[in-house]
Amino acid sequence: MKRNIARLSQHAATLGVSLRPHLKTSKCIEAARYVLAGGNGPATVSTLAEAEMFAAAGITDILYAVGISPDKLDRVIALHRAGCRLTVLLDCAAQANAVAAASRASGVALPAMIEIDSDGHRSGLTPDDRALIEVGRILQDGGAELAGVLCHAGESYNVVGREAHARFAEIERQAVVDAATALRKAGLPCPALSVGSTPTAHGARDLTGVTEMRAGVYVFFDLVMAGIEACTLDDIALSVLTTVIGHQTARGWTICDAGWMAMSRDRGTAGQPVDQGYGLVCDDAGRVIPGLYVKQANQEHGVIARHPDFQGDVPEFPVGARLRILPNHACATAAQHQRYHVLPETPGAELVEWPRFGGW
Amino acid sequence: MKRNIARLSQHAATLGVSLRPHLKTSKCIEAARYVLAGGNGPATVSTLAEAEMFAAAGITDILYAVGISPDKLDRVIALHRAGCRLTVLLDCAAQANAVAAASRASGVALPAMIEIDSDGHRSGLTPDDRALIEVGRILQDGGAELAGVLCHAGESYNVVGREAHARFAEIERQAVVDAATALRKAGLPCPALSVGSTPTAHGARDLTGVTEMRAGVYVFFDLVMAGIEACTLDDIALSVLTTVIGHQTARGWTICDAGWMAMSRDRGTAGQPVDQGYGLVCDDAGRVIPGLYVKQANQEHGVIARHPDFQGDVPEFPVGARLRILPNHACATAAQHQRYHVLPETPGAELVEWPRFGGW
Repeated sequence: MKRNIARLSQHAATLGVSLRPHLKTSKCIEAARYVLAGGNGPATVSTLAEAEMFAAAGITDILYAVGISPDKLDRVIALHRAGCRLTVLLDCAAQANAVAAASRASGVALPAMIEIDSDGHRSGLTPDDRALIEVGRILQDGGAELAGVLCHAGESYNVVGREAHARFAEIERQAVVDAATALRKAGLPCPALSVGSTPTAHGARDLTGVTEMRAGVYVFFDLVMAGIEACTLDDIALSVLTTVIGHQTARGWTICDAGWMAMSRDRGTAGQPVDQGYGLVCDDAGRVIPGLYVKQANQEHGVIARHPDFQGDVPEFPVGARLRILPNHACATAAQHQRYHVLPETPGAELVEWPRFGGW
Repeated sequence: MKRNIARLSQHAATLGVSLRPHLKTSKCIEAARYVLAGGNGPATVSTLAEAEMFAAAGITDILYAVGISPDKLDRVIALHRAGCRLTVLLDCAAQANAVAAASRASGVALPAMIEIDSDGHRSGLTPDDRALIEVGRILQDGGAELAGVLCHAGESYNVVGREAHARFAEIERQAVVDAATALRKAGLPCPALSVGSTPTAHGARDLTGVTEMRAGVYVFFDLVMAGIEACTLDDIALSVLTTVIGHQTARGWTICDAGWMAMSRDRGTAGQPVDQGYGLVCDDAGRVIPGLYVKQANQEHGVIARHPDFQGDVPEFPVGARLRILPNHACATAAQHQRYHVLPETPGAELVEWPRFGGW
């Protein structure tokens, strides 16, 4: 985890942009202390519950990177009054009007970023959409603060290799630069240009014009990220410890007690060149055991079997043996647990528990 | 929820078997009070954490229906000493030896059931497996208590209609009756014959020889159960309340704030005749809106779109509108939340919160 954090931090520094880590992967104050390297921001969150928890822990610069709805603005204002600069995200006039009205009513000029769509993945306005200027003007003239533009190249998760991620990083960069240019031409400010996803943050080679990048899952990484070559298996810093509870010898199955409740139902590698089932199997020291994967999962049962791509023999493990499973998707697997059991940096030292939180 | 509970309770009474509800779906003391109809058992759980929580709430007869591993036996014995009869499940000699050894060491004759496999779904011995007698003898002669045999027809979730579920119920029944006959012929006791899954429990027509049936998801039901005709959409007693946060008008998308963190990654209808995406969309009163579904989900974003099977027009909803999403899989969706917001039986009365627990 520390190596993953240091690597992206150095890459951001080399590119001359600030890094605004997404804390939705860990949802953990102790992990955030490492990710934010002792500072109190900048940070990104995916829910108001995260914003409230991290603000209570002293983090003062948070971007809530999911489109705002009017019913949530009371909690946004309360966070500002408690000393946290929480920036909201939006992409339409209805949201901008609500944010401007809340700003006027509260006397807090709420900072808002406009979401830009670069790849058709999900939300956002294209840089040439005339609504961009309209939304910017509603915010700026209505008493809110137009804080900038934001883009997330969600489609970058579907392409393999550093070269492909670099292309998406350039698409993200171009989108926010074009949007900022349009806003500025219309006489509107655009101080922040924010881009990012774990693949594009690592793949980016030139971020001219951009002020910050965001990434989240890089802290732990996972099999989906390994499958698109955004990391190696050795970078994966999260696993689920499980115990063997049975066998179906005729079918070559080993049954363990890590089912989907422990792994999540995320099957993110199902659409990748190598489908890793519900996860790859490691020994209790975290070394990948070649040829094994979690073929299927029920609520509290995982079925370990030989991967169809593997030809050789695979070892057998008796009832009671301990194994570790590397997850498809760290955000989803971590969300199934209430705490992390942190392996000590000094071998032989005690495990440390880091609590996680959830909710909205 | 109350109607679902009453229906299966009546069906069990008609069949002359006891009902041992599985509490893994709700993981909630308050829901268990309804499910157990004021009694303190019998109940089924999927983790020791559930056993400990329900035992602390006064439930005294619990079956832990996941294969036991030796490292968990200390907690099993502690539950017995605290007044809860916790029955464990196993299907091999290694487990039986561990249970017998723990029984002798503790002076608590641990009750254990032998898992029987009727459909190749997951764990268990076939009724004609000679290991059945070996395992039974290890338990009985070793100081544990051979409490009976248990079967779960997991493959019943993959067949559609009451007729097909009745066939799997008969396969389950025959498997435990055959296993009990084999044990008794060998001079071993087999007091309990336990069968069940939500489809087979509802489909069963004759359970001669069986003493109890188990079911879990029937309390809430879900789209997977509706897809195999184990329930109707109107029986589904669990939904996720969500708010509209944006649109992609050109693509016909409405973005809401129920992503996979709220719905779970469960895509259980993906393999069914009608793929319901991440869920069906209802108005805030819970009435299904024809033609809409959650087409895709990110962590905190759900994309609502017209279902490909639907031809007509679908309504549009403004930013801030509230909708409800019916889940694919109630066990998985409920697990993403820390509490239930229980709709009042009297319209206009206050919502009640029921806490949920997780962990192992």
